Amino acid sequence: MDLTILGCHSATPRANARPSAQLLEMRGHLFLIDCGEATQIALRNAGAKFARIKHIFISHLHGDHFYGLFGLISTFQLLGREAELHIYGPKGIKEAVLLILKLGGAWTPFPLLFHELTTDEQGVLFEDEKLTVKNIPLRHRVYTNGFLFQEKEGDRRLNMEMISQYPIEVCDYQNIRNGKDITLADGRLIANRELTLDPHRLQSYAYCSDTLYFESLADYIKGCRVVYHEATFLQDKEDLAKKTMHSTAYQAGLTAKNAGAEALILGHYSSRYNDVNLFKKEAEEVFPNVILAEDGKRLLFA
Amino acid sequence: MDLTILGCHSATPRANARPSAQLLEMRGHLFLIDCGEATQIALRNAGAKFARIKHIFISHLHGDHFYGLFGLISTFQLLGREAELHIYGPKGIKEAVLLILKLGGAWTPFPLLFHELTTDEQGVLFEDEKLTVKNIPLRHRVYTNGFLFQEKEGDRRLNMEMISQYPIEVCDYQNIRNGKDITLADGRLIANRELTLDPHRLQSYAYCSDTLYFESLADYIKGCRVVYHEATFLQDKEDLAKKTMHSTAYQAGLTAKNAGAEALILGHYSSRYNDVNLFKKEAEEVFPNVILAEDGKRLLFA
Repeated sequence: MDLTILGCHSATPRANARPSAQLLEMRGHLFLIDCGEATQIALRNAGAKFARIKHIFISHLHGDHFYGLFGLISTFQLLGREAELHIYGPKGIKEAVLLILKLGGAWTPFPLLFHELTTDEQGVLFEDEKLTVKNIPLRHRVYTNGFLFQEKEGDRRLNMEMISQYPIEVCDYQNIRNGKDITLADGRLIANRELTLDPHRLQSYAYCSDTLYFESLADYIKGCRVVYHEATFLQDKEDLAKKTMHSTAYQAGLTAKNAGAEALILGHYSSRYNDVNLFKKEAEEVFPNVILAEDGKRLLFA
Repeated sequence: MDLTILGCHSATPRANARPSAQLLEMRGHLFLIDCGEATQIALRNAGAKFARIKHIFISHLHGDHFYGLFGLISTFQLLGREAELHIYGPKGIKEAVLLILKLGGAWTPFPLLFHELTTDEQGVLFEDEKLTVKNIPLRHRVYTNGFLFQEKEGDRRLNMEMISQYPIEVCDYQNIRNGKDITLADGRLIANRELTLDPHRLQSYAYCSDTLYFESLADYIKGCRVVYHEATFLQDKEDLAKKTMHSTAYQAGLTAKNAGAEALILGHYSSRYNDVNLFKKEAEEVFPNVILAEDGKRLLFA
């Protein structure tokens, strides 16, 4: 799993603080999560292949998570995109995008498919044979969802050292990966366990931004290995966090702990704090493995 | 007159080529002309005082001239703006901005006043005692206007060297600026010409983007001293310019010449050309004083 933080700051008018956007590579997919203004520039700086992005997930319709979508779609047009583009986000996102396209006298030459969300419950947004994407109902000033990306049980892995000791044809490899035993030409039966290794540990990633702290959030992301959670404030501004429906670093740590996560990534820092290390310190009071998001930072998880 | 090129490239997905936006300071006003994506970042980099921008002029509703408007308005909100903001642009701009604000659950705490354009004729958009702003009807794939900024005749300037030779009170200075003769206490009449210098030469600026070349454009901006004109292509792509309703550098030069301009600023270069000096060279075949726009460039005109 390969995560690039394209932008990780809250909506603040600073020259060098990009708003929320992340690029997640998982099992061959390249998912864009949120799309603040100028995300296309951040994607370009990250060397991302635009054509590989087929699914965009927008948490909510505040500008710092959403205003880059129009420009990105325009750029897809200019690049001659033909592949489908799926956009997941709150109801209203379709009306906004279509109006902006109409005003520009343009229509996309590629299919633009909207998946508008209105539910307050968790459900599956996208699924294939390799992974599942679910929404995470969050609590913010406007309707907001986080997103949970979970790998599915993968194939068993070929143990080539063992396989090479038998006269096994390449055409049998997929059967072996699928867990089948093999009967050789001389009649010997070779047990699958002897020919394979266990699948890799399943990866999972939860994106939680923006939200008020609430206890049951941990249930939605239970067992998720890597959690991104917004931390707009520190505990000194707990009241303000509550009032603006954001979280503190400590609260983010609490949710990661209660979810049983292995790693917590913090971001969405308010510009009022000059030292982002304070966020890490505070979350570490309750959860040990805290990573600070930084614009342009790439994180690899095995 | 103080002009900052915030961005001057056509809609191309490159990391270091900002879309159209300009900041014009003229007689105490700070006008924003077009507002491509991430213009607020360019404004921040230019050290602009956001609060001083009271009038925004949008030429047309293509993304590279317009998609930065939403983020800029959001930032005005965050900065606690209270002053009126006037937005001039094609019909539809109000619907777009209001929808995006509504989806974000936000309303501006400052008056947001729209001046939607539908006319195909030239007229006055804004006027005070010091200057006039008119639209320039352009010809593009969608409804488009350029903008013409013209200083009005200013006061005569005090010739302090002469004034100091007479017993003239400070309270008479404004009468002198206004062109009046002065009668001294001893009855002598001093002619205004003796006490004053001519006003500064009037400044004027025309912003022409995007447009097909057409002869009568020069009439709309006749006598304008500084002209910005798009040059998306060179003459080698004259057909493509016509098809996409853009201009070549040569055509921009021709318009500047026919308008009787003193200086021509070129911009909106297509990314297909690696050497922007070719644009200058081509325009100079017909017009002598050509300036190449560059992102972040500041131009002062006396």
